[in-house]
Amino acid sequence: MSTSTRERLLKWLQDAYAMEQQSETMMSALGKRLEHYTSLRNRVLGHAAETRQQADEVRGCIERLGGAVPAAQGMAATAIGSMQALGTALMSDEVVKGIGAGYAFEYLEVATYRALVIAAEAAGESDIAEVCNRILQQELAMAEWLRANHEGIVQEFLQREPNAPELARR
Amino acid sequence: MSTSTRERLLKWLQDAYAMEQQSETMMSALGKRLEHYTSLRNRVLGHAAETRQQADEVRGCIERLGGAVPAAQGMAATAIGSMQALGTALMSDEVVKGIGAGYAFEYLEVATYRALVIAAEAAGESDIAEVCNRILQQELAMAEWLRANHEGIVQEFLQREPNAPELARR
Repeated sequence: MSTSTRERLLKWLQDAYAMEQQSETMMSALGKRLEHYTSLRNRVLGHAAETRQQADEVRGCIERLGGAVPAAQGMAATAIGSMQALGTALMSDEVVKGIGAGYAFEYLEVATYRALVIAAEAAGESDIAEVCNRILQQELAMAEWLRANHEGIVQEFLQREPNAPELARR
Repeated sequence: MSTSTRERLLKWLQDAYAMEQQSETMMSALGKRLEHYTSLRNRVLGHAAETRQQADEVRGCIERLGGAVPAAQGMAATAIGSMQALGTALMSDEVVKGIGAGYAFEYLEVATYRALVIAAEAAGESDIAEVCNRILQQELAMAEWLRANHEGIVQEFLQREPNAPELARR
């Protein structure tokens, strides 16, 4: 039984690693495109950097369990992240759609790390549980920042759009 | 200015209508497939029914503004919902991936309705703001239910999987 829970833990870590690559692609693309929403741009680019560190930490956990770091899956995740970023970039309300997509993605990460903490504890891997719990707190902090700033950004977008749609957009 | 904010409100209501169709497809598919997680199954199927009502309410708001209900976009959304449901269905940890995807999707809806409440108030459409706020509360309640039940479901999955993977899966 413990072997199988370990295998599941490893599989979820590999999934999380791919997810972080997707997150990094999305966050970098969104952050770099934002021009007129400075605080959002800075927070999103800061989170992209945080995400690269998280991917490294997750990679460390995978290696600690003797697992393989999923390169091919990572490339697929990056492709998905690029498509999402591109889809949002085509929209006239890019900043609002971007913050919504980023907010939802944070909660995918929150669910992933909550499950990982439980699996790591079940497998007796308390160091891995600690790493995953630390990342979970970072994801919750990012989600909370987006929630707290969402209303202000939507207001700003709505005020700008009628007279300056290109300025409002991103 | 008020015309343009009205147009934006209408556009976001049309986006929300398409999103609700996607949500209904995902939630119905997930709920119907769950066999061994009864409380999750019931809550997800209950939310699928709630989602159909939400779509009707959003449609009412679109019609109140004299807008067109987006049929083609709705079909695309349904296709995306079906692909997501199918993607999750292929996984050996379907229940865990399903709850994670559903949780993230709830926050996409939360962000959408928060923006809609702001836009409806900015456009002076207090009835629409009220409808969107009521739907927002339902989405937050669903997200909170998933959060509160997530740990128990992950524990159950991990306990079942080593000896009964097919029972654990869904």
